[in-house]
Amino acid sequence: MADEQIMDAELRAGDEAGRPDDRIDDERHDEENRLKPGYLRSVREALEAGDKGRVYDLVEPLHPADVADLFELLEADERPLLAAAITDLMSGEVIAELNDHVRDDMIEALAPGAVAEIAEQLDTDDAVQLLEDLEPADQAAILAEMEPEDRAAIESALAYPEETAGRLMSRAFVAVPEHLTVGDLIDFLRDTQGDELPTDFWEVFVVDPAHKPVGTCQLSWILRTPRHIALSDVMKRDQTLIPVTADQEEVGNMFQKYALISAAVVDESGRLVGQMTADDVVHIISEEAGEDVLLLSGAGDGDINEPIRDAYVARVRWLVANLGTAVVASTIIALFGAAIEKLVALAVLMPIVASIGGNAGTQTMAVTVRAIAMNQLTRANTRRMLWREMRVALANGATVAVLIGIATALLFNPQLGLVIAAAMLINIVVAGFAGVAVPVIFERLDQDPAVASSVFVTMITDSMGFFVFLGLAVASGVVG
Amino acid sequence: MADEQIMDAELRAGDEAGRPDDRIDDERHDEENRLKPGYLRSVREALEAGDKGRVYDLVEPLHPADVADLFELLEADERPLLAAAITDLMSGEVIAELNDHVRDDMIEALAPGAVAEIAEQLDTDDAVQLLEDLEPADQAAILAEMEPEDRAAIESALAYPEETAGRLMSRAFVAVPEHLTVGDLIDFLRDTQGDELPTDFWEVFVVDPAHKPVGTCQLSWILRTPRHIALSDVMKRDQTLIPVTADQEEVGNMFQKYALISAAVVDESGRLVGQMTADDVVHIISEEAGEDVLLLSGAGDGDINEPIRDAYVARVRWLVANLGTAVVASTIIALFGAAIEKLVALAVLMPIVASIGGNAGTQTMAVTVRAIAMNQLTRANTRRMLWREMRVALANGATVAVLIGIATALLFNPQLGLVIAAAMLINIVVAGFAGVAVPVIFERLDQDPAVASSVFVTMITDSMGFFVFLGLAVASGVVG
Repeated sequence: MADEQIMDAELRAGDEAGRPDDRIDDERHDEENRLKPGYLRSVREALEAGDKGRVYDLVEPLHPADVADLFELLEADERPLLAAAITDLMSGEVIAELNDHVRDDMIEALAPGAVAEIAEQLDTDDAVQLLEDLEPADQAAILAEMEPEDRAAIESALAYPEETAGRLMSRAFVAVPEHLTVGDLIDFLRDTQGDELPTDFWEVFVVDPAHKPVGTCQLSWILRTPRHIALSDVMKRDQTLIPVTADQEEVGNMFQKYALISAAVVDESGRLVGQMTADDVVHIISEEAGEDVLLLSGAGDGDINEPIRDAYVARVRWLVANLGTAVVASTIIALFGAAIEKLVALAVLMPIVASIGGNAGTQTMAVTVRAIAMNQLTRANTRRMLWREMRVALANGATVAVLIGIATALLFNPQLGLVIAAAMLINIVVAGFAGVAVPVIFERLDQDPAVASSVFVTMITDSMGFFVFLGLAVASGVVG
Repeated sequence: MADEQIMDAELRAGDEAGRPDDRIDDERHDEENRLKPGYLRSVREALEAGDKGRVYDLVEPLHPADVADLFELLEADERPLLAAAITDLMSGEVIAELNDHVRDDMIEALAPGAVAEIAEQLDTDDAVQLLEDLEPADQAAILAEMEPEDRAAIESALAYPEETAGRLMSRAFVAVPEHLTVGDLIDFLRDTQGDELPTDFWEVFVVDPAHKPVGTCQLSWILRTPRHIALSDVMKRDQTLIPVTADQEEVGNMFQKYALISAAVVDESGRLVGQMTADDVVHIISEEAGEDVLLLSGAGDGDINEPIRDAYVARVRWLVANLGTAVVASTIIALFGAAIEKLVALAVLMPIVASIGGNAGTQTMAVTVRAIAMNQLTRANTRRMLWREMRVALANGATVAVLIGIATALLFNPQLGLVIAAAMLINIVVAGFAGVAVPVIFERLDQDPAVASSVFVTMITDSMGFFVFLGLAVASGVVG
């Protein structure tokens, strides 16, 4: 996939953020196979040979996002060599596009002054991303090297909790008073120095004297309206406003639901303080949606660039938790030790009941967690969802029970076939119930349902699987 | 979450798609708690009482996306009642925002002429979404009722495979020749009738006489440039072009990597044929990223609105596949039946080894599947990833082995403690290997690694868990 994407895309060089007149001499680069193994090998050979000129020539045509990818594909000890060979290509954009872990490594290797210089090239939101994970002392050292204005903007962002709109928003936006005409606005935009306007903006916010948003104009509406028309006649008064305290998941859901390209961020008193744009939200949504699969599996951050130590700490917790639940299931087996001694077929068959139950529970749990994340499952329809899953579970349970029941009846004996079929049906229905109930309960307790649901659902399906199967075997007299 | 979002957002009414002068009399609606249970109860009561006027008054202030949510929250038999009560609020936008399953149900209940009328209100991409899942005969009947021009556009979209740029792109965009000045462009936009321009656009594409893109101008650049400047001096020549055949996952990755707001779609000969915008891509990314958790768990589509029958078919397949793998694991247990008869502790402990191994394998698999989806894992770094996971697995395995080894030594006997510790370590390392290798192999075979990896990884960890533990127990003579 990676290769295909690079092959099909026409790569872009140059700095997107430049003012109009910088853009003229960009060249188009559509050579194929840029980050394919062959290309990577050439870069590596040049790095090893210490041929900085060749490295530079190879990397120079890349888009900053591709340079960032190149860093990630190299080994950790090759990265400083690359950085040294292409210093003047190491734009803020490259740094901003780097994977968090790779970036933190590189930043730690640099002097505070050098980091400050990079941070000053960036938009505030990217600079914040650069600094937010550093040790407080390192952060302070870097901030001390920055221009007071940039520092203040970054400090104000860092004052908001991580993953909130206040932390993520861009502080650069265009806001104008309501009394302007379209012509006034165009003149204002033409006359204002480039560096006083945001590098990218897609709508102009109209504000009242208290700086509260009263409306918004998409740039296309402005371009299509005669100069003499008042902005108040062009703007749309209804707009989606993002509270500065909104969590990033909430922001992502708002962009998705209302198909936004950009939106105003307002503080507690309703004043316009920033904007969020869809290109940033795309990252948030991808992160949030991808997170569930990692959280449900207990893989923590789950980034392949995460230091091994962190990956170990994140994962071993869940393995130990799972060890606890497995021990619970084991004690249930131990209760039936005598029965197993008499009929070893029970030991052979019992993992099947537990395993399929676990699988069915995971299916339902995944659907539930996803529905909660997408705001599709609320108090209003939880009961309907539960009822729906019960019916799916009955159908699934009946199917699997018949299959395993017949196989067991043929291989062992008919009575044992009945026992395992009944146990399987019961366990799959229990799994369906737990798969909805566990994440919903976590959600109601204000816990992320993706984080710990798995451990509980597995414990329930394992324990129930062993208990129902072994218990039914004993109760039905099949053990003899 | 759903309630919070509604509470915090200022809801917007009115049609975004309107021309500037329609926008004036929109009102701002920021009443809180719109779709909270209380609101829903009021709508339900009014529906039950047959009080259409009250239903209309309740629904009228909602944003179309919220109306769509309301439909989804109602029971299937209440939805037609709501539709009947608010016919003139049933805009194309409401229909476009509906969940696929809910929409298909509603569309099937309508006459082809009525559907055609709705489809004609929509942008081509939304109309395509409306029609693509219908039976060919229904589709043809609806297309026959449409204006020839709209029909042709939809048919051309349907000619591309599902989930490709050609199917998803918007066919409305602004493309102009290179020789224009900024002033010419603004005059062109002002003079062109509203319905001949796209409702939303964020950049203007500059094309050569063969209609191939030569550059792009963000609207903000145009607004900030004096009228006499040539477009060729404002435009950026480098741009990301999306091939019409690109898969939606690829499109999502391009938007994410290059932080795009919109991008040109080109056909095989490089001619500009459409555009994709970030608001559509946001849906794609959310769908693609969320899909993994559902696919890995074997939950299929995993939509809570999916008909029960479809959910059953999607999920039972994986349960039956898992039944097969569980039977494989069982036959391994059966090989050691005599040992279990002698030492029933083996039956008590063996599921622990299999279960933790399965858990560890799932963690690694989730990380691998996510890395593949994000284009982070390529041939260039697979070996490094594998080596990394092996080290994490050794650390995890050692930790869990010590814990379970000590517990077993105390509760049973030291020799059995050593056996289970060794089996646990081996199974977790095997799990780490399988968790990387299985998805990577599926990827290289051009199969979606999220789809079937789970079944294979579980089979490996279950079978190895039983085999190593029981085998070591017999070989070490602990059975006696």
